[in-house]
Amino acid sequence: MLIVQKYGGTSVGNIDRIKNVAGRVVRTVEQGNRVVVVVSAMSGETDKLIGFATQISVAPSEREMDMLLSSGERVTSALTAMAVEALGHKARAFTGRQAGIMTDTVHTKARIEKISGDRIRKALDEGYVVVLAGFQGISESEDVTTLGRGGSDLSAVAVASAIKADLCEIYTDVDGVYTTDPNIVPEARKLEKISYEEMLELASLGAKVLQTRSVEFAMKYRVPVVVRSSFNDNPGTLVVEEDKEMENVVVSGIAYDKNQAKITIVNVPDKPGIAAQLFQAVADANVVVDMIVQNISSDGKFADISFTVPKTDTRRALEVTEKIAKELGAERVDKREDISKISVIGVGMRTHSGVASKMFQTLAANNINIAMISTSEIKVSCVIDLKYTELAVRVLHEAFKLAL
Amino acid sequence: MLIVQKYGGTSVGNIDRIKNVAGRVVRTVEQGNRVVVVVSAMSGETDKLIGFATQISVAPSEREMDMLLSSGERVTSALTAMAVEALGHKARAFTGRQAGIMTDTVHTKARIEKISGDRIRKALDEGYVVVLAGFQGISESEDVTTLGRGGSDLSAVAVASAIKADLCEIYTDVDGVYTTDPNIVPEARKLEKISYEEMLELASLGAKVLQTRSVEFAMKYRVPVVVRSSFNDNPGTLVVEEDKEMENVVVSGIAYDKNQAKITIVNVPDKPGIAAQLFQAVADANVVVDMIVQNISSDGKFADISFTVPKTDTRRALEVTEKIAKELGAERVDKREDISKISVIGVGMRTHSGVASKMFQTLAANNINIAMISTSEIKVSCVIDLKYTELAVRVLHEAFKLAL
Repeated sequence: MLIVQKYGGTSVGNIDRIKNVAGRVVRTVEQGNRVVVVVSAMSGETDKLIGFATQISVAPSEREMDMLLSSGERVTSALTAMAVEALGHKARAFTGRQAGIMTDTVHTKARIEKISGDRIRKALDEGYVVVLAGFQGISESEDVTTLGRGGSDLSAVAVASAIKADLCEIYTDVDGVYTTDPNIVPEARKLEKISYEEMLELASLGAKVLQTRSVEFAMKYRVPVVVRSSFNDNPGTLVVEEDKEMENVVVSGIAYDKNQAKITIVNVPDKPGIAAQLFQAVADANVVVDMIVQNISSDGKFADISFTVPKTDTRRALEVTEKIAKELGAERVDKREDISKISVIGVGMRTHSGVASKMFQTLAANNINIAMISTSEIKVSCVIDLKYTELAVRVLHEAFKLAL
Repeated sequence: MLIVQKYGGTSVGNIDRIKNVAGRVVRTVEQGNRVVVVVSAMSGETDKLIGFATQISVAPSEREMDMLLSSGERVTSALTAMAVEALGHKARAFTGRQAGIMTDTVHTKARIEKISGDRIRKALDEGYVVVLAGFQGISESEDVTTLGRGGSDLSAVAVASAIKADLCEIYTDVDGVYTTDPNIVPEARKLEKISYEEMLELASLGAKVLQTRSVEFAMKYRVPVVVRSSFNDNPGTLVVEEDKEMENVVVSGIAYDKNQAKITIVNVPDKPGIAAQLFQAVADANVVVDMIVQNISSDGKFADISFTVPKTDTRRALEVTEKIAKELGAERVDKREDISKISVIGVGMRTHSGVASKMFQTLAANNINIAMISTSEIKVSCVIDLKYTELAVRVLHEAFKLAL
């Protein structure tokens, strides 16, 4: 088999752990597989570098930020290649550029546009273990770019797709994907298998085992992904295409996200195109909007528009919204950061009704007020007060009998 | 003026010092100059990374070593560019590759083959301060290479030459070039001016203010260099072409080098070509030989050949020499590491005689035995017992009246 193995920051957090990773890689090779390893920066390293940058500038250049941050993965890739060689196997470390990971020019959250992978394939053919510095690519203008937080997951999945790997293993410090956060619900159960769609919802809703865009990519190119721990030999959770068996499970998991802020533009005179104008401006500011709710006043003349954005983007989103609010003649703009989003996820919802109402009833029975609701085919999300997050997760996990 | 400023590891050793460097850069720009900054890794950083590598492998791959070590300069270049921008000037950080520094493929001590410098010139034309990650380049095979210890000096001089800079300022933690090490001789005097040739001898003899190859490069392409401190505004030492004034000074400085080992191949049957065979083999092992002395026995049948190599290369040189010694039928190979080399340097020697004999007399008068002698047009070097190093430097500094 041709296997891509990605090791996160804690898995390569010190020299002993890097040696442990090399041991796993070599074991996989000795079982007859060809292996591409993708590594993150040693844990703490990226935050240290960000700390340096913020000590120097309140708004450091994003191009320079990428050059700064990409150095951490280069270090681990070189060290990991050395560790594999120390165990008697040939290994080569490659940067994003050397691996041919071409991105757009949006620094600090670049999108992969193309992966040539020529050097990877050649090195594999020559019997090398390839160790790739994750999280980074190179833009058309020959500048180093990074793929955003957790970008090494994306590097791994994208490379797996480019070289047509049989499996992409994401090694982390947890055993796999759980029905919910075991720190909140000790009875949370590890899932053996989960569909791309469910994983995508879980990831975008704050479950930190896989970066959202890496799941999108895996889903789009049908890359089989396994999430497992680098600290034991437990089998992990397989992320694959939806199958019959999955459809029989109505709800697979409960997710929560405390990193959203809610912005409301109040009493904007309602006319066609106001939402388009607002969200175009927000998008132009490179802010990703999650939930959107619009209410029309009873006389139909005014509307309130609420939406959520990542807390880190609150300031930027607020600036843009206030500008637009003035142009549209709205009354004011409100902001709330003490919220969280709770979501119930499951592909079985497509064929089973009643999930949403059960969720609302459960929250109501526990006196948890719902501020916003949004639904998709396989998910129901509610925005609630931040302080009720853990309670909501616990009661929903129980209501949907996820502990089994 | 177009000025290249190189800042060493201690000058960028922490965030405050990086800000201090940015202040100096901005001051230079505001005086009407265009500036290219070349930075080393933060002091201690390179050694930390080397420590990681040696914990992992006794003989880490040199290609991976270069990827590892080059990361330190990337970090400082990005941070320095941010710091310049924080002071209100446009700045761009460039890696060795982005600056177009092409090298050969000899990892860990690559030689610069070509500098395109297109991006540097373009950025300067657009009004940017250019901040270049020193010490690194890119080989034909698109692999990161490093230029050896102190390689950032070479980056600076080479870039200065490529972009035809008016001046290359090397900022370090000392005020300039001294007649000898002030730690040994407190009366040592800072030189206002020194010729490339003298600087080259001083550098290759262990004075640590400038890397040897950077001086060779500066001499070859006539790049005017100033060595000065980043911690004060003292004028430093100008390294330039020899002039009349310099020739009147017979001796400019005393250097010492404790990092050499002496290898002797004893009683090798003398025939044409033995030296060639030996030193070809040593060169093939990538070991740079410094002094060479050959004695023929009184009957002309046997020869002893002694030579010195950097201590770090002793093991490799010894292996090669022992193999050759066997082939040539030599009696044995000896090694001594408790030696040092003391040198007296001055372009005035070309026109004044008696320097060598004065040196030998001075050493003899202090009971210091001479193990090897080598001379050049502007230098006399003696290998002596390591323990007499400081004594020899002091008495020679006095004998040649360098304190003035």
